Amino acid sequence: MRSGTEQTEYGGLASFACRLVELARPMAMAHFRRNIPVEQKADMSPVTHADRAIEAAMRALIEETYPGHGILGEEHGTSNLDSAHVWVLDPIDGTKSFVTGMPTFGTLIALLEDGRPTLGVISIPPTGELWIGRDGEATMFDGVACHTSACSRLADALAYTTSPDNFDEAGLKVFDHVSSLAAMRRYGGDCYCYGLLASGHIDAVMEMNLQPYDFMALVPVIEGAGGVITDWQGQHLHLGSDGHVVAAATPELHAEILEAVRA
Amino acid sequence: MRSGTEQTEYGGLASFACRLVELARPMAMAHFRRNIPVEQKADMSPVTHADRAIEAAMRALIEETYPGHGILGEEHGTSNLDSAHVWVLDPIDGTKSFVTGMPTFGTLIALLEDGRPTLGVISIPPTGELWIGRDGEATMFDGVACHTSACSRLADALAYTTSPDNFDEAGLKVFDHVSSLAAMRRYGGDCYCYGLLASGHIDAVMEMNLQPYDFMALVPVIEGAGGVITDWQGQHLHLGSDGHVVAAATPELHAEILEAVRA
Repeated sequence: MRSGTEQTEYGGLASFACRLVELARPMAMAHFRRNIPVEQKADMSPVTHADRAIEAAMRALIEETYPGHGILGEEHGTSNLDSAHVWVLDPIDGTKSFVTGMPTFGTLIALLEDGRPTLGVISIPPTGELWIGRDGEATMFDGVACHTSACSRLADALAYTTSPDNFDEAGLKVFDHVSSLAAMRRYGGDCYCYGLLASGHIDAVMEMNLQPYDFMALVPVIEGAGGVITDWQGQHLHLGSDGHVVAAATPELHAEILEAVRA
Repeated sequence: MRSGTEQTEYGGLASFACRLVELARPMAMAHFRRNIPVEQKADMSPVTHADRAIEAAMRALIEETYPGHGILGEEHGTSNLDSAHVWVLDPIDGTKSFVTGMPTFGTLIALLEDGRPTLGVISIPPTGELWIGRDGEATMFDGVACHTSACSRLADALAYTTSPDNFDEAGLKVFDHVSSLAAMRRYGGDCYCYGLLASGHIDAVMEMNLQPYDFMALVPVIEGAGGVITDWQGQHLHLGSDGHVVAAATPELHAEILEAVRA
């Protein structure tokens, strides 16, 4: 149970996360479908000057408003990570979608308190859709509480992953096995998949090699909507996780997926 | 060269296609994100009562307005195919997207004249986006002429396919080879990919085992935007095509892809 003061503080930090969304969204849309140059990073993932500019603007607002807070961002590294409060930022999640005009990329914002993600935001700039998850509260989608589906069996599940190319060979075999037991699998979506999961439209997402800026914001969103999100061993996600993520609509479905992963 | 009368008739038929879009769109949106039941057809592809109801409504309007015209639809079969004018309808292209809340499914409408697609429409109900291609005229996107990119080299190309699951084993090897030569590949999108291609945001799409209701509407849209769309042998698409489709932004890129297919 949290005290009233803490709830007020939550409200303040969630409101501040919305200010970050409002800052990021027009910047993203100003570069969307403008055929901007794409560079490849050392890990071969694509990046644009929009990614860098949006993160820089969000960092500046955080540093101005909460100078004691830490920041971990995809494009500009870490600062003050030993702070009790650390913001985890992905200015453009789904850069391949972003640079190809596909309107399903997002901006991800998480707040860690003592290492635990207590606030998570998925913002989809082209559609204006917004999922906000807060520790111990119902996840809100466009201002209304949302909930995962009641799907409890893998055989009934609609499953997503972003791309087979994001798995290594062994991981792809695992995903192939798990998703072959599902009712349907579809590719593409990045963070949008987790929004669809939180709103009950799909039932499971499985991915490999995500980074903390990819998955931290998802945790409060999925958990606050009634779902379960862990690594492939069923462990809570943290900054040191290996980035193999499984998210499911119900504990029963999650357990069945983990069982299939082990098989 | 077409006579003035024929141009007027084109306008009339394109306007009528827009009436079909206006009929289909609210029906699709009334069922979108409503967790409607999904059935599997004999070919294992998913279908909902929305697919069937939308096609039935479009067919009724065609039969009332142009009783002599033929119709080929995904859900309700063929009628009067020996007519000089045949409408080819896919009420929901991307049913997996539709039933999972992903806002990138479409409605496809083509008109064949003596077997040749002379009018093609890609409508995206959730976003309201609309591509209209007409034989010999510039493809229009939301009322403005659009054009494919100038990309002429596979090494520079942003390539899409809907899902690796849509290829057979040999076909997936071909796609894997071709797309490994591209600058980037992304999965997911169905007809939305071809709209992105027509508007110059991506450069190539390659798919296997499409049906006439999947590809006929794409032909006027891609060709009217300056692109090239054929089967994997470089032949024009027709009702008897095998449904292996390659679409590219420029003739040079298309030729390079066909060369890679043969390799």
